[in-house]
Formats: sequence, structure tokens, C-alpha cells
Amino acid sequence: MNLKQLSARLGLSPTTVSRALNGYPEVNAATRERVMKAARETGYRPNRTAQRLATGKAGSIGLLMPIGDQVISDLHFGEFLNGLGEQAQTEDFHLVVMPSDPADEVTALRSLATSGYVDGLCLAYIRENDQRIDLMESFGLPFIVHGRFFDAPHAYPSLDVDNEAAFYDATRLLLQLGHRRIALINGDENFGFAIRRRDGVAKACREAGFALEPRFHVSTQMTEADGQRAAERFLALAETPSAIVCSSMIQALGIVRAIEAAGMTLGEDISLISYDDVLPLLRPELFSVPLTTTRSSLRTAGKRIAERLIKRINGTETDDFGELWRPELVVRSSTGRAPD
Amino acid sequence: MNLKQLSARLGLSPTTVSRALNGYPEVNAATRERVMKAARETGYRPNRTAQRLATGKAGSIGLLMPIGDQVISDLHFGEFLNGLGEQAQTEDFHLVVMPSDPADEVTALRSLATSGYVDGLCLAYIRENDQRIDLMESFGLPFIVHGRFFDAPHAYPSLDVDNEAAFYDATRLLLQLGHRRIALINGDENFGFAIRRRDGVAKACREAGFALEPRFHVSTQMTEADGQRAAERFLALAETPSAIVCSSMIQALGIVRAIEAAGMTLGEDISLISYDDVLPLLRPELFSVPLTTTRSSLRTAGKRIAERLIKRINGTETDDFGELWRPELVVRSSTGRAPD
Repeated sequence: MNLKQLSARLGLSPTTVSRALNGYPEVNAATRERVMKAARETGYRPNRTAQRLATGKAGSIGLLMPIGDQVISDLHFGEFLNGLGEQAQTEDFHLVVMPSDPADEVTALRSLATSGYVDGLCLAYIRENDQRIDLMESFGLPFIVHGRFFDAPHAYPSLDVDNEAAFYDATRLLLQLGHRRIALINGDENFGFAIRRRDGVAKACREAGFALEPRFHVSTQMTEADGQRAAERFLALAETPSAIVCSSMIQALGIVRAIEAAGMTLGEDISLISYDDVLPLLRPELFSVPLTTTRSSLRTAGKRIAERLIKRINGTETDDFGELWRPELVVRSSTGRAPD
Repeated sequence: MNLKQLSARLGLSPTTVSRALNGYPEVNAATRERVMKAARETGYRPNRTAQRLATGKAGSIGLLMPIGDQVISDLHFGEFLNGLGEQAQTEDFHLVVMPSDPADEVTALRSLATSGYVDGLCLAYIRENDQRIDLMESFGLPFIVHGRFFDAPHAYPSLDVDNEAAFYDATRLLLQLGHRRIALINGDENFGFAIRRRDGVAKACREAGFALEPRFHVSTQMTEADGQRAAERFLALAETPSAIVCSSMIQALGIVRAIEAAGMTLGEDISLISYDDVLPLLRPELFSVPLTTTRSSLRTAGKRIAERLIKRINGTETDDFGELWRPELVVRSSTGRAPD
């Protein structure tokens, strides 16, 4: 059943039927009711493309997909994309994904924005000296930032998790447990999320009267192999850390492997707290020693980003406000008192 | 001449060149002038959109993204998408991803095909009585099938792995090792890949003179929890299987957990062979007992699908041929002689 057939059945013009279905005021209530009833009975689903042509909307959200050698970070991207997709589906939107060299995102963004294929953009992977807010505004398209700029000239719509608070909380727990030799295996500190995580650890250490030491601090890709290598290096030091904080459950996989290989018992000889994006495959409670984590769902963030961006496209969100989600600190068995 | 080549020629970073071309204030006037001059001289054309308008192409590949409750299957989708994205990037294409209810893919496909936003379509998730080849052809757009139909009226472009051969090979190895009680923990047998895998196991068993028994055969989602539940059920039988074949490394995670919980030693008390899509996180060689697998990279398949589809869009592939990749059987420690 398409629009033409439905119209013929009702003896109305396609334009009238379309207007009735789309809630235009020109159609009187009785006709609208008749059309809606027939649409329900026949299972008619309006052609989204035709609707879009009528409204001048593409019905889509655009975003960049970083393509490069750091393959495993894609797990995080996939999880975020799935949240976007879930919400987009409920609102009949699709996603336009532009693969992009991380070193040349401006060209990709500009191309996406001027393509006419997207009604709005989601910007992510914010860096320290990121000046893209002006660029985003120059497009004249609704947008939302996943993350936060470090210095923006004015307010803008965003959603971020409070990465500094998450890592501050984690480090404070370790301090309360008597740890002083605390190491950080961070994500790539070219990006804002990792900079804020480092700042959270450093702040907690500073408040306890010492500094996060360079020998106990590394910034890596969020892969299993990088996590393992970093932990092996720490465990080979003359004075090893008594606790590690890391940025991803994927790194944690490699870190746990290094700890086991060193013959140490997690939660007794050494403590570990991982950031947990709630990747469905890597559930911290299922590790042989369940992991203490700071937790915030990347998929839920994707859903919320899509919801807000679509509202902005539809004109029902107009304020430029930032949302900041505080991750939970969930204590399991991988943390314990510092060994004497 | 692309951005990378232009940058190399100038001895500048791609970011600087891109910023210069896009009028960013961080680039000083002399550099900008030098970049603009080189761009003119070499005929570098940064604006893809303008190019597309000139050719009447959107520069995009369209595909559906199943949205539903089977969250973990998304890992496979993400891996495939990444392969598509890698290839698309090298050819300046983007991806249009339509979230779709698996029960209503026809509506989503039609909407995508008629949107004007895609130059070609990739069709996947082929089912047993799938009649969508006519639908795909009715769109008048280039397309390629990931997988294969069971009965198609004529040739069509496709790429598939030989799922039947993979599971036949795996089962034959188990038979050679003396196993007779062989169980299959398959993917969802509403889909073609899983039907063919079942057929491969059944064929090898039949050739050995017995049938794949219903008590040793289950079709589940490809999740860790489903794998674990299925294995637990098998291990609670009066007569347990001496070997298991499964459809995904994600199921294998749960199966290994069930085997360990039952106090059994993998590769001695029971054997396991998993299908391996080469998910970067789940490397079979890193399991505590390294897993024997049948292996074919889903990411590589995505790259090849994108390559062929873009060729079809560009008119440089015109034959309707199917490609069938034979997975490798890689033997590790999770397979051993059947216990006496």
C-alpha cells in the first residue's frame, strides 16, 4: 500500500492524504480521522523520502568514523554508533558515516556538512587545542559535541562524562586503601577525555601530598597489547606500583594478563581500577577476579546524543547547554588494601 | 593528487595544508599562499561535494544496521563496517547507515534506495526464503550481496565465506581425532550463514555414518551468555558431548567458562572448535587454552565488498559473479583425541 493506492481507496488526492498524515492544519478533523483510520487498517507506512522532500529534511545525522591503525578503538566507536542507531531508528532517522583520516577531520567535516545529506552533525574526538566550534557554527547546521572543548568562546550543546571526577574518585579510593605507588595507563592524551582523566589522578595524588610520577604514567592506544606492554614495564621497575588505574576494559585485559604472568594476585599483591564503557563483551564482573570500575555506558551516551541532536534538528531543543554525566565507581575484587 | 601527496610535496603536515585550504586563522598568510598556489598548480580539488555534483554521484554506499535486543552481534557488524569504511575512505566514499528493525528490512531498504543519498547498496543478513534479489534489482542501483541466496533466478554479485566447508572441515578433524559425540552451538538458523554451518556439520557426521543429534544441536544468538547456557546444558546430559563446534568467538567465551566451571580440561576432556571472524579483541591464540578455529576475516570481507561495490558504481565491474572464500582451519590446543 503506497500513498497513491491509499488515496485512491479514500477518493482523496495524494496531497490531502499526505497532509492529513503529517498533521497539517489545512485538513479538517473529520477527513484526518478518516485518513488515519484507513492508514491503520491497511498498514500504510508513509514514504519517508516523500515526507523529507516536503519538509526539506534529509532525515539524517552525520558523524565521522576515524580510520587508522588503532583498530581496537573501533569497539568503542561501534558501541557509540549503536546507541545513535537505536535512537535514530525510533525517530526514523538514518546515519551518514564519513570515514576520516584523524589527521584531516576538517576536510571530512566540511564535506559532510555541505553535502546536503545531513540535517545535523555529531562532533567527537575533541583535542586539547580544538578550534572546531567556529567551524561547526559556520556550517549553519544543528550540531552537538560528544565531549567538551577546553576553551570555547561561548556556550554550545554537548554531552560528556566527567572523566576527571571518575579518575579522581578511583584514585581517592586507592589512597584510602593505603596505596601511594599509583600508576596510570591512560588513553591517548592527544584527546580531551584522556587529558581530563590524567588531571583527575594527578589532583587526587596532589591532595594526598605527592605527584603522579612520570615513571608510573603512560599514554597508549586503548588496545589489549598496549595495556599488557605498559603493565609489564611497570612490573619490571625496581619499585613497582601497588595499584594501577586504566582507561579501558580492553587495556585491562592485557594488564590482567601481565599481572598473572608476573605471578601476582590481583586485589592482593596489586590493585586495578578500569574505566568501563559498558562494552557488552567485556563485563568486569565476569573477570576471574572481578574488576573494580568507574562506569558510564557509551551506548546510552550515543542514544542521548541522537535524541538531543534530533530535537535540535526539529527545533524543540534550542538552548546551548552542556550535560555532564558522572560515572559510578563500582567496587569489586580487584581492589584491596595496599600490601605492607 | 590527494591531500597526502600535496602535503608531502610542500613539506607540510596534512592538517596544516587542510587548514590553509579551508581558511583557518592559525595558518600564516605566507604559508596559506604557498599552499593555495601549489593546489592550483597541481590541480588538487579538495571539495568532494563539488566533484559529486558534477558527476551526479552521492559518493556513498548504503547498508542496513540491524537494531534489536541481540546487542552482542553488533561486534560483528562493527567489524564489517570498519572494513567497509577503510576501503570507502581510500576511494572518498562515505557510508549511509539505516538503522532497521530486522523484521521490516524491506521498508528500510526501499527507503534507502529511493532516498537519492546512496549510489549503491550492500545487502546482508540473507535468510532461507529470501526473495530480496528482485527487490534489489527493482531499485536500479548497483548492489552487492554479503552472503548468498538459497535459490536465485539468475546470477548476482556476491561475496560469501564457504560456511558449509568451514564447518565440514572442523567436524572432519574431530572425527579423525576419534570423536563421535559432536555438538553444535550454532548462530541463529533463521540466517543463511548458520543454515550452511549446520549443513556442514551434518554432512561430515553423515559421511561418518551417524546423524547430528537434536540433543547435541542448538541455535542461539552469538552472545557469551547464550554460549555458556548451551554448553552448560550439554554438560548436564547423562552422556555429554566429547567435542563442540561453535559459530562465534563470543559464544566460545561462554563455552570455555562453562567447561572450566565443570572442572573439565579443554583439549583433553573435551574439544572445542570455534568460527573466528578475526575480531581484534578475541584472539583465539590468547585464550588460556588456545582455541582451534576456522578463520576468515570479516573486516577483510567488508573491504572487498566496498571495493567491488564502488567498482560497480563506477562501472568498472559489470559481471554478476559470486566470490566464495574458504576459511582456514587453524589447529591449536583446544582439540585433542577423544577421551576413551
